[in-house]
Amino acid sequence: MKVYFDNAATTPMRKEVIELMTESMATTFGNPSSTHGFGRTAKTSIEKARKEIAKCLNCESQEIIFTSGGTESDNMILRCAVKDLKVTTLISSLVEHHAVLYALHRLEEEGVNVHYVELDENGTPSIDHLETLLDADDSVKLVSLMHINNEIGNVLDLDLVGNLCKEKGAYFHTDAVQGVGHYPFDLKSQPIDFLAAAAHKFHGPKGVGFACIRKNLGLDSFIVGGPQERGLRAGTESVHNIVGMQKAIQMAYEKLEKERAYILSLKKYFIQKLKELYPSTQFNGLSGNLEKSSYTLVNVALPLDDSKSQLLHFHMDLKGIACSKGSACQAGADSGSHVLVNIHRPHEAKNYPSLRFSFSSFNTTEEIDYVIESLSEFKD
Amino acid sequence: MKVYFDNAATTPMRKEVIELMTESMATTFGNPSSTHGFGRTAKTSIEKARKEIAKCLNCESQEIIFTSGGTESDNMILRCAVKDLKVTTLISSLVEHHAVLYALHRLEEEGVNVHYVELDENGTPSIDHLETLLDADDSVKLVSLMHINNEIGNVLDLDLVGNLCKEKGAYFHTDAVQGVGHYPFDLKSQPIDFLAAAAHKFHGPKGVGFACIRKNLGLDSFIVGGPQERGLRAGTESVHNIVGMQKAIQMAYEKLEKERAYILSLKKYFIQKLKELYPSTQFNGLSGNLEKSSYTLVNVALPLDDSKSQLLHFHMDLKGIACSKGSACQAGADSGSHVLVNIHRPHEAKNYPSLRFSFSSFNTTEEIDYVIESLSEFKD
Repeated sequence: MKVYFDNAATTPMRKEVIELMTESMATTFGNPSSTHGFGRTAKTSIEKARKEIAKCLNCESQEIIFTSGGTESDNMILRCAVKDLKVTTLISSLVEHHAVLYALHRLEEEGVNVHYVELDENGTPSIDHLETLLDADDSVKLVSLMHINNEIGNVLDLDLVGNLCKEKGAYFHTDAVQGVGHYPFDLKSQPIDFLAAAAHKFHGPKGVGFACIRKNLGLDSFIVGGPQERGLRAGTESVHNIVGMQKAIQMAYEKLEKERAYILSLKKYFIQKLKELYPSTQFNGLSGNLEKSSYTLVNVALPLDDSKSQLLHFHMDLKGIACSKGSACQAGADSGSHVLVNIHRPHEAKNYPSLRFSFSSFNTTEEIDYVIESLSEFKD
Repeated sequence: MKVYFDNAATTPMRKEVIELMTESMATTFGNPSSTHGFGRTAKTSIEKARKEIAKCLNCESQEIIFTSGGTESDNMILRCAVKDLKVTTLISSLVEHHAVLYALHRLEEEGVNVHYVELDENGTPSIDHLETLLDADDSVKLVSLMHINNEIGNVLDLDLVGNLCKEKGAYFHTDAVQGVGHYPFDLKSQPIDFLAAAAHKFHGPKGVGFACIRKNLGLDSFIVGGPQERGLRAGTESVHNIVGMQKAIQMAYEKLEKERAYILSLKKYFIQKLKELYPSTQFNGLSGNLEKSSYTLVNVALPLDDSKSQLLHFHMDLKGIACSKGSACQAGADSGSHVLVNIHRPHEAKNYPSLRFSFSSFNTTEEIDYVIESLSEFKD
């Protein structure tokens, strides 16, 4: 049996998305920047996609900038905010994705002030400390805090943080790569200036994403060249990928409530079964809290002794089960999770091996039973 | 009838490429950075692609860095050469693609010295002037000159320029977006340090390309985040696009000589027919010279009076003919071609409307007859 419980790393594509992309590649091959008929057809495709994606998040079409994915979107937003909006203080947290953290490191080397908001033992940022940081001086500030933590599933209160930023005159960016397509957004009313998203996290194609940039902020491009994306992102648009992203996000939001309820039921069932197997299982971050964490994932520290800990991931892989030690983006590095290191977990959890299981509507309770059975074999 | 003579803007995808990508999307959905089986399968796909692409250009796999396209590749190479290799003088030309020109403008604003090599009336860079610029001082220099000019088809002598750079201790980058897949490369023997390519110019997908970076140069990443591409380019890899690019480049090089001969015969036939129709047709740049310009395109100034000039592009579009006023990347801007402005053409050509016709193996002589017929109707 093959079980894919690593949907926070990437998701299988919906067949409707693949079909549409295949058709787009065969029929809509023009360069959207060409003014002839072939070009206009391609341009129409991507502008329709922009409109539909904007509709899903309730923002304006012009606020959607297509990019090669979440990482480029985060890099673009942070770097251009410094370059074009004269931001000189960046406030973030140590549990952000590396697309944000490493962009911050680079900007810090170049002279920007970077501060990290304090986190509690579950990885929740301190709003009091954020307020202190925002009040510290008169510099132009940007706060970058992720919507859903990709490793521990903590959900940020976007309105709370965004309104505080607004009140203090700071820009607010959220890396919503794990949130878009899984949670509703209403960007016309939400106090969010920038948002990053990636299609492959919601059953769309890899290598495409978007940045939402509140209109009239005056941002310029990160990648320069042709006048694509109204001068905000140069490079021939990946038409088929953009069309696929549109289909994926539309389907995600059409089915959101139904799929959310289903995936949440899987998470609940998994937690219940896991607790039956290992009553002393620890849940990292807020991932065991059904209200305050994403319904899509759980990150567990399993009470196993050292010798078994070493083999756990290998055992799961042999059983055909895909889950993750940390985020995929650092899986190869094998250097441990920067998120778990930074959330000050209880002592016992630190010595246990941690695994992230993340679900999609493609998963089943039978798969959970198989995973639990596999974990139980390993226990014996 | 619909005729697509704008293959320098983008090419229709080969059906074999689409088929493989469709299969890849359905079966290879893992994140290449995940260490489990699903991830390893995806990783194997992209590493195989890297190996096969490297084979096509005779370089080492590790020298191929996957990007979102030619523009990102150019941006990355120029910016990182300045940042990581301490390049303080950039030497280029005014007929480069905007992906290079605008990256140079940005770097110049940041304090880098940028010089442009003199061009003759056909847009050929002066090697003497290049040598003078290279000898001017002891700064660390990089020369960026494109392989095939995307508007006028001039072919640069890569060995001549590369060897001069080598002799003078300068780095050499070539934007080979119009050359890769159309001309053979042998990067192990050619004196090229950096090269940019885009799959959609050789019947592959849009939104993917690569940078060739000579190994051990010490370049760091442009887009930062996860450790993808051995730390040189962060962001989840666009697996299906990479696999499609591999198929497209392999097919391009397998069929190169045959397709080259065929496309060249189309170009010759087109030039002959055009000269019959308008004996005083001017060929911009070297595009009328079969030896010194790309076999894929011709850029012509048609001897039409002002009133007809205004309507030419519109007329061609009405006839279902896709050709271009300049490069697609500036077509929307309608501000005229920076290439034609900078090559000091003869006075008469400047007053004539210019059109670029670019061919692929998918085109036919019947299509040329139709285009000539359409131009002839317009003449009367």
